[in-house]
Amino acid sequence: MLYINGTIITMNAKREIIRDGAILVQGNRFVKVGKTKALREEYPEESTYDLENRAVIPGLIDTHVHLAQALLRGSGDDVELIQWLCETVWVLQGQMTHEESYASARLCIAEMLKSGTTCFLEAMLADRYGFDGIAKAVTESGIRGCIGKIVMDVGKYASQSAWSMHPGLVETREQSLLGALDMHKKWHGKANDRLHVWFGARTPPGVSVELLKEMTQFSRERNIRITMHCAEVKADQDHYRQNHDMTPSEFCDHVGLLGDQTVLVHMVWLDDRDFKLLAKTGTHVSHCPASNSKLASGVSPVPAMLDAGVNVSLGCDGGPSNNCYDLIQEMKLAALIHKAVSCDPVTMSAETVLEMATINGARAVGLEKEIGSIEEGKKADFVVLDFESGLGTTPNPNPVSTLVYAATGGSVYTVVIDGELVVEKRKLLTMDEEEILREARKNADTLYARAGVKGQPKWPVV
Amino acid sequence: MLYINGTIITMNAKREIIRDGAILVQGNRFVKVGKTKALREEYPEESTYDLENRAVIPGLIDTHVHLAQALLRGSGDDVELIQWLCETVWVLQGQMTHEESYASARLCIAEMLKSGTTCFLEAMLADRYGFDGIAKAVTESGIRGCIGKIVMDVGKYASQSAWSMHPGLVETREQSLLGALDMHKKWHGKANDRLHVWFGARTPPGVSVELLKEMTQFSRERNIRITMHCAEVKADQDHYRQNHDMTPSEFCDHVGLLGDQTVLVHMVWLDDRDFKLLAKTGTHVSHCPASNSKLASGVSPVPAMLDAGVNVSLGCDGGPSNNCYDLIQEMKLAALIHKAVSCDPVTMSAETVLEMATINGARAVGLEKEIGSIEEGKKADFVVLDFESGLGTTPNPNPVSTLVYAATGGSVYTVVIDGELVVEKRKLLTMDEEEILREARKNADTLYARAGVKGQPKWPVV
Repeated sequence: MLYINGTIITMNAKREIIRDGAILVQGNRFVKVGKTKALREEYPEESTYDLENRAVIPGLIDTHVHLAQALLRGSGDDVELIQWLCETVWVLQGQMTHEESYASARLCIAEMLKSGTTCFLEAMLADRYGFDGIAKAVTESGIRGCIGKIVMDVGKYASQSAWSMHPGLVETREQSLLGALDMHKKWHGKANDRLHVWFGARTPPGVSVELLKEMTQFSRERNIRITMHCAEVKADQDHYRQNHDMTPSEFCDHVGLLGDQTVLVHMVWLDDRDFKLLAKTGTHVSHCPASNSKLASGVSPVPAMLDAGVNVSLGCDGGPSNNCYDLIQEMKLAALIHKAVSCDPVTMSAETVLEMATINGARAVGLEKEIGSIEEGKKADFVVLDFESGLGTTPNPNPVSTLVYAATGGSVYTVVIDGELVVEKRKLLTMDEEEILREARKNADTLYARAGVKGQPKWPVV
Repeated sequence: MLYINGTIITMNAKREIIRDGAILVQGNRFVKVGKTKALREEYPEESTYDLENRAVIPGLIDTHVHLAQALLRGSGDDVELIQWLCETVWVLQGQMTHEESYASARLCIAEMLKSGTTCFLEAMLADRYGFDGIAKAVTESGIRGCIGKIVMDVGKYASQSAWSMHPGLVETREQSLLGALDMHKKWHGKANDRLHVWFGARTPPGVSVELLKEMTQFSRERNIRITMHCAEVKADQDHYRQNHDMTPSEFCDHVGLLGDQTVLVHMVWLDDRDFKLLAKTGTHVSHCPASNSKLASGVSPVPAMLDAGVNVSLGCDGGPSNNCYDLIQEMKLAALIHKAVSCDPVTMSAETVLEMATINGARAVGLEKEIGSIEEGKKADFVVLDFESGLGTTPNPNPVSTLVYAATGGSVYTVVIDGELVVEKRKLLTMDEEEILREARKNADTLYARAGVKGQPKWPVV
């Protein structure tokens, strides 16, 4: 298929934007990217798809997602972290069935697809959600998914050793680490290589030093990638200092986590030593500004990390901590919040955050040779944006500005993943949206009732 | 008309939320608000409009808007303030024609209406935009508009005395102050009292102390309200200290600005003395978190102002500083950014920011007895939200959370202002959306070309 008449924001090495651009897709690859006129002449027999001057970007890559939390959207807001986790989030997650988790994953994936996310990294999929069902949801939907199977052996929360997890979420080394190896063997590379299986380590001390070392050993031996929440709250930084006399990154280095195979998530509470170590080792960082803000974790020193040469990508996190899975909105927040706290209007430009959401994301998930830009030979993951029919995206002198500062996921018009149309003219082609909504509501009701969580408005309901 | 079967977020004194709620509108007023069953029995003859269980909120009130800047969306991003103003924003604004300003105002109003804003406060309408055309745009559209006619007599920018404004934007005392009095006489109270005319003072020293005093004198004598940018950047605070040995609020007090008639905008660089003085005098503050972030002005101490008892409302600001006019997105940012910088997850709850966008806004524009809540006797301004068909707004256990944290203006389904349907099923009824888009594009092209402003992407365009 020859896609013609678009404004192609390629994200190639030169960051070229092609006006009157065209993209030739054959199979699941970009075969040629250039000017419409030239490509039409070169491929006169090829079927054409008119982009009608719309902007085209590489598919967005969300490097921190919790699929099972979509069903928990709006369940707990504006409360202290311990109350949020121990009275709401874990209580609900700790009682989820496979059916509810499948409904949640489908809701989450559908929302991501319709808002332009074509690849995601799930951080910590627990056994109780049912790996096979989640893998099925990814396969059916057409999305590209990296699923971090949870690795843990301690039933405590992160640095807060007094907080116990819900028993329904606790897994042993055998279940979690060996389970991850099983799932890797079973699912990694499936769905035409759209599905990857990762280790999704819990945060210390929710996972022991021994288990972390064992996991990183497996990672190196079997080439399995790792993601882990790290230095999200100040107490995490304190924990590493008090218990190990190390910074967060020094601790990660100590257990073999640092390197190109690892995506560390949040990374709010760091210092200069961390920036240098992360850059030197090629470790990736996933920045989640909405979640860090809503949970009042703080503001991650992203500009300093970028300056130090760390690869930083973007993540939406989960239903109760964001509360949406729209990476376009996340880009705007990333561009805004760092300017506000630094009083530097030049930091975190629209161009920088678009890099974070595309090519940096591809690097983070180890697929920089396959996705993240619109270039010949790469897999055909791209998003067509409709700015022209939107009041809020008109006029549009600079599509990068319009995308980051004016648009939301609502501007996404068409999505192609692995060469296949997944969303066309704002309609999801691979999944039944009505059914997803119906199942989400039904399963949320059942889950809330069983868990005894209210999730009601705080104001009097009459 | 009896609107039935809604979830009515009333914003009344008790903040009641009515499930299975109904609203009786007669003429331009709410006549009765209650349960559907009771109202149907009480008014069996009344025509009904089925809200189909959707959430209903009072119309949103945006207390800081620049109508003429919608056409400048995307014209300047990620640059220093002086470059932003002197090379882009003023160059474009200083050359706008009445026709271009009218096209911009219509684009801006249409965007506001479709995203749930039913009343706005325009901060600083210059003569060159053509007051009559803007008033016409407000009248035709059905929106409720408070228009601050610019008051100025110095051609400098705020505290930056070295920066000259574009000559096309400079007005004399006679033009600006007396012109405002003329426009007040001509337009205030028109369109069934939907149109109000205010003084829109420039920031000192863009306006002299003498002129400010003369304006506040007129304000008291003729009951004309005032809005002014204040303490937006640190240089403003420095200016008041160095030139007047006062804090920003002390200076405002000195020239007679403080009091219930005044909305001060931005208010980022303040201290304890300011909070107390603002609260004591009943002066209103309009908080614009996206603009303060994008222009790297800083983070306004809103939680401290609210604690001190200051009435704080919300504003989107303008096309080049936000870059959208969606107050629902602004609510989310307001809820997030203060949590991030304070590390306090309880501050700026969803409920607080919804108050800022509704009842506090009504107070700010002096209409707390007329709008800002869904209550018997008030004017019928309300917004129906469609969360049920949205992937990103499902499930919806708490509509206040869904509105603030998960929705965007895209969830707005129906809008009623002054008893009239203005938006229905996402369609603008009072204006021709296609024409607005066409005129916006055409006029932006003409303006950019005449002004010699590029507004191109920063990356190479091939």
